[in-house]
Amino acid sequence: MTMPRAPSNDGRARAVIEGIAPAVDGGRYPIKRVVGEEVIVEADCFTDGHDQLACLLLYRREDETQWRSAAMRPLVNDRWRGAFTVEALGTYRYTVTAWVDAFLSWRHDFARRIDVEDLRIAAQVGADLIEGAAGRAAGDERRRLRDWARSLRSEENAAALRSIALDEELGTLATRYPDRRLASTYPVEFTVTVDRERARYGSWYELFPRSCSPTPGAHGTFRDCEARLPYIAQMGFDVLYLPPIHPIGRERRKGPNNSLQTKPADVGSPWAIGSAEGGHTAIHPQLGTVEDFRRLVTRARDQGLEIALDIAFQCAPDHPFVQGYPEWFRWRSDGTVQYAENPPKKYQDIYPFNFESEKWQELWRELAGIFSFWIGEGVRIFRVDNPHTKPFAFWQWAIAEIKRDHPEVIFLAEAFTRPKVMHRLAKLGFTQSYTYFAWRNTKYELTEYFKELALGPGREYFRPNCWPNTPDILTEYLQFGGRPAFMARLVLAATLSANYGIYGPAFELMEHTPREPGSEEYLDSEKYQLRQWDLERADSLAGFIGRVNTARRENAALQQDWNLRFFPIDNDQLIAYGKSTADLDNIVIVVVNLDPYHTQSGWIELDLAALDIDPATSYQMHDLLTGARYLWSGPRNFVRLDPMRTPAHVFALLRRVRSERDFDYFM
Amino acid sequence: MTMPRAPSNDGRARAVIEGIAPAVDGGRYPIKRVVGEEVIVEADCFTDGHDQLACLLLYRREDETQWRSAAMRPLVNDRWRGAFTVEALGTYRYTVTAWVDAFLSWRHDFARRIDVEDLRIAAQVGADLIEGAAGRAAGDERRRLRDWARSLRSEENAAALRSIALDEELGTLATRYPDRRLASTYPVEFTVTVDRERARYGSWYELFPRSCSPTPGAHGTFRDCEARLPYIAQMGFDVLYLPPIHPIGRERRKGPNNSLQTKPADVGSPWAIGSAEGGHTAIHPQLGTVEDFRRLVTRARDQGLEIALDIAFQCAPDHPFVQGYPEWFRWRSDGTVQYAENPPKKYQDIYPFNFESEKWQELWRELAGIFSFWIGEGVRIFRVDNPHTKPFAFWQWAIAEIKRDHPEVIFLAEAFTRPKVMHRLAKLGFTQSYTYFAWRNTKYELTEYFKELALGPGREYFRPNCWPNTPDILTEYLQFGGRPAFMARLVLAATLSANYGIYGPAFELMEHTPREPGSEEYLDSEKYQLRQWDLERADSLAGFIGRVNTARRENAALQQDWNLRFFPIDNDQLIAYGKSTADLDNIVIVVVNLDPYHTQSGWIELDLAALDIDPATSYQMHDLLTGARYLWSGPRNFVRLDPMRTPAHVFALLRRVRSERDFDYFM
Repeated sequence: MTMPRAPSNDGRARAVIEGIAPAVDGGRYPIKRVVGEEVIVEADCFTDGHDQLACLLLYRREDETQWRSAAMRPLVNDRWRGAFTVEALGTYRYTVTAWVDAFLSWRHDFARRIDVEDLRIAAQVGADLIEGAAGRAAGDERRRLRDWARSLRSEENAAALRSIALDEELGTLATRYPDRRLASTYPVEFTVTVDRERARYGSWYELFPRSCSPTPGAHGTFRDCEARLPYIAQMGFDVLYLPPIHPIGRERRKGPNNSLQTKPADVGSPWAIGSAEGGHTAIHPQLGTVEDFRRLVTRARDQGLEIALDIAFQCAPDHPFVQGYPEWFRWRSDGTVQYAENPPKKYQDIYPFNFESEKWQELWRELAGIFSFWIGEGVRIFRVDNPHTKPFAFWQWAIAEIKRDHPEVIFLAEAFTRPKVMHRLAKLGFTQSYTYFAWRNTKYELTEYFKELALGPGREYFRPNCWPNTPDILTEYLQFGGRPAFMARLVLAATLSANYGIYGPAFELMEHTPREPGSEEYLDSEKYQLRQWDLERADSLAGFIGRVNTARRENAALQQDWNLRFFPIDNDQLIAYGKSTADLDNIVIVVVNLDPYHTQSGWIELDLAALDIDPATSYQMHDLLTGARYLWSGPRNFVRLDPMRTPAHVFALLRRVRSERDFDYFM
Repeated sequence: MTMPRAPSNDGRARAVIEGIAPAVDGGRYPIKRVVGEEVIVEADCFTDGHDQLACLLLYRREDETQWRSAAMRPLVNDRWRGAFTVEALGTYRYTVTAWVDAFLSWRHDFARRIDVEDLRIAAQVGADLIEGAAGRAAGDERRRLRDWARSLRSEENAAALRSIALDEELGTLATRYPDRRLASTYPVEFTVTVDRERARYGSWYELFPRSCSPTPGAHGTFRDCEARLPYIAQMGFDVLYLPPIHPIGRERRKGPNNSLQTKPADVGSPWAIGSAEGGHTAIHPQLGTVEDFRRLVTRARDQGLEIALDIAFQCAPDHPFVQGYPEWFRWRSDGTVQYAENPPKKYQDIYPFNFESEKWQELWRELAGIFSFWIGEGVRIFRVDNPHTKPFAFWQWAIAEIKRDHPEVIFLAEAFTRPKVMHRLAKLGFTQSYTYFAWRNTKYELTEYFKELALGPGREYFRPNCWPNTPDILTEYLQFGGRPAFMARLVLAATLSANYGIYGPAFELMEHTPREPGSEEYLDSEKYQLRQWDLERADSLAGFIGRVNTARRENAALQQDWNLRFFPIDNDQLIAYGKSTADLDNIVIVVVNLDPYHTQSGWIELDLAALDIDPATSYQMHDLLTGARYLWSGPRNFVRLDPMRTPAHVFALLRRVRSERDFDYFM
């Protein structure tokens, strides 16, 4: 018989903690919040036997050395919940601690005792515990606890003993000074990335500055772009995002419609970055100077617009890096570099970096330095081109490095790829992510996808940014659905998702001709040529977009993702959903006709209990797109949407509530 | 502008691994298997860009220093799967490694190339990679790879180049010597506890040795127990489990029916352990000597029965520990120890240990030593009494200590408590766990509960052992349902769960009178007094139990838990389910009438595709309880069960399969 070895740690810590949520991959990655938001933490906490447990949520800013704490309360089935608010940008940490609380156990037990002698013995045990608490307290509180212990020791009468022992106020006082020597603390510190509010919601507008010139055929400049700012601001956008603004390679430059043949006047693709004129920290000479760029950033800010830059880590063959740092590329025996591909797309004008280079550390530093450079020029939002074709480890490092000094920076991942790859990029640090929204068209597809985004476990780290179109994506729905399709897709993006964007003016001018049948590429795409847009066109959606963005700005319910709830509506061409603030002060209900060709009608069924609406009273539905007001009552109401007029309702729901002065009014 | 700091690790390891399953709490606890079983491991593996990945499952016995490996194959959506077999008792470890495979990427890419010049350049790249593989190979394989590289370099013709490059056999050879320098290995080593087969399935029989005497009123002995072995073996049981066999305390001894008043002749509760005659390593003098016990263990083994002991870590007031180790108890000011409670039950005759004692390490060692002692006496199965009233940390330590030297030991946790507490005990090391089965009576309850046990995430560590009755549990269903209730509950336990047990002879003799109305305690319970049982009673269920246990022994499908599938049957009083071996060589279908009073009938609907049955042919249903044979055809068939005859069918399903000699036969 072998005698067991000696146990090592203090085995008297009897509290158990497990199943802490939220947690991304067991705490390997941070959850995301914005400043001022609450982090609600739950955990399974229990102990052996029948003793009483106490649990605390511990949290701190990463740079603080001491934990702060918040009480956790039991729910059911050994689940406990607590919460804290993140008040500053950067990283927070949290974990849970729990202990068997001798005082609470004693009190719980004492209440069930009947026998007088038993009560007296138990009172002595309690007095010891309360004296322990007194020893951890100070001043008046210490005195009060000592007095309490003394009366427990001296009292002889059973009824009096019971009332002394179970005194609520003194009990609360004693629990403030628990004996935590044998507390268990969960061994993982979970992290929260705290971003600024813009990370949670915003309306993005993408345009090509080179197409902004008022002169036909002329190359647009940052100055032209400045002139366009009031137009964009009036539509209610928050972010103006520019494709790469750097010198464009001349070697293997692409012609219009992605042609391999070019004429000297062809402007090339802005994503074929770099030429003798400079690389990723240079500005295309025809756009302007660094001073022009700075001015654009400032002027935009004055109009409530923040400039976002597109960062694409790749090089035209004549980018200075190619000759300057040949180790960063994978050379073939014929002295060429294999061009980039994103199957089935081929980018003959672009060289990828070789991240397996022996000089990878130099490369990483150089690339991270590009972000730093543009931060120095006042940019705080980066849309990152194809991050899924660069190593995950690079992004994790680079984003952490940048955010350490600049926690206000927002990174949007432009990865349209497999779900797990997109999620990994979000986990490792990207603030926001492009989505599959463009290809989710039916009610079933939209419902399933947005339920996953708003309610699935990924919501802790994957912030969706939904785009009905981009310079690369002209969907079939938009190609064939006409004006109603553009309006419907805009409303869906802008109300299903707190972050959304459009690529304009192609969007508001309903550009819808593909390069060839079956393609999602635009004909005469701005990616390869200058375009002139007639912003004054009578059918422009600019005014409509402005109304939608105004609704977003004026309704806090639309500035969040997690509050999305779908409602039944008895027509598969109609989709209905709502968002509301936690206090129900703001409720928005949206109905969209997904059929761009026919009028559709149906009965929507609201969850009145969840909306705190008395089923016996009526409530007002104020359409924020048309201004119309409808009086609804009960859970089921009729909706009819003619796509030739407006294919959607965006309703503010105004409930009758009783005011302090006892009048009814709509809130 | 702050320049980013230098990246630290090798950022060129581009493969990503996440979501490894199975994993209990992220790898904090082991999964469980028995010797010879397969561990199927899945993981999400992917990389940036479009390169090809290779993944290996790494595994080893804990005492091995080198990993063994098994290939992982891609499923869909970046999920990979591999498997290994656990061949020895003890602990195994596993994890996953993956790398971007330059050779596979090259080959994948090469197949899509068309341009001749391009093919020639690519062939040079491939030749370099193959020479790399040759450098990692030896002997003839090295020579073959070198030759291959040479012909790739020299061949000029495009078609010939293509056929050389894409040679299947040489490709397979090269993949045997991959370049794993930049492989990523998941940072957690997951563990498997490998038990012996008895852990996965077994039929348990509990009896009180002191009630085994053939002489009325006499205290039974181990010798009497020996005489009972053939009776138990004939019923087909595998494990004979005995309540505590130690000296019983005389202080505060309980009388019949848990009475606080005792007469001198009262025998007391076996769970009130210890007296002047000894404690947990002593044997009750009236049961016999250590030699008698050893003989019982041997004789039982000769008849295919393994002895399991009940280990209850608690003391009667006159247990030698109480005076010998007063620090192990929590004394009150009146010189007494607070007795044990398991609300609402009170155990006035039992002192609990104080695990918060300063001398907790001594206590732990002493208690673990009790297991070691009985292992020394030939016991390898322990049923642990109320483990949830002792610290989790103690069990984790004690079970690990015991299993390090004796991986064949089985621990059954007798914790009837909250779900998370029961799961924690299973996670931290208990081999098997009692369940809520006794209180799951309706079709809905049984279906939901057994789906959770067989298919839920807990199945990786929580092995159910289902008991229709115990000395503490006489359910209402058994109190009122008569003989059909006993038969139905036996069939349910024995066919829903691979491990089950009964407390006899109370069970086979259908003892069903509670101590008082509403109680689940037996009247005149053997816990407090001797009982005499008439095993020859004509209505005994011993024969029926024997048929059920024979079915379990002869049908491998019933020796597993995870293979359980429920079938629809259009009567809520009938429940239908099946189990089959992976190769479908053995299929068992069970139908039970849950109504002990009335005949019930209905149409069962089998999933013929899953059972690989041609819907156009008939198949035979052989009832293992009655011997009857029915010919069924198609998915829907009629079943009728009269509880006054047999309330259940346990069918072996015999399919027609085509033999080699082209005859049909039933398998």
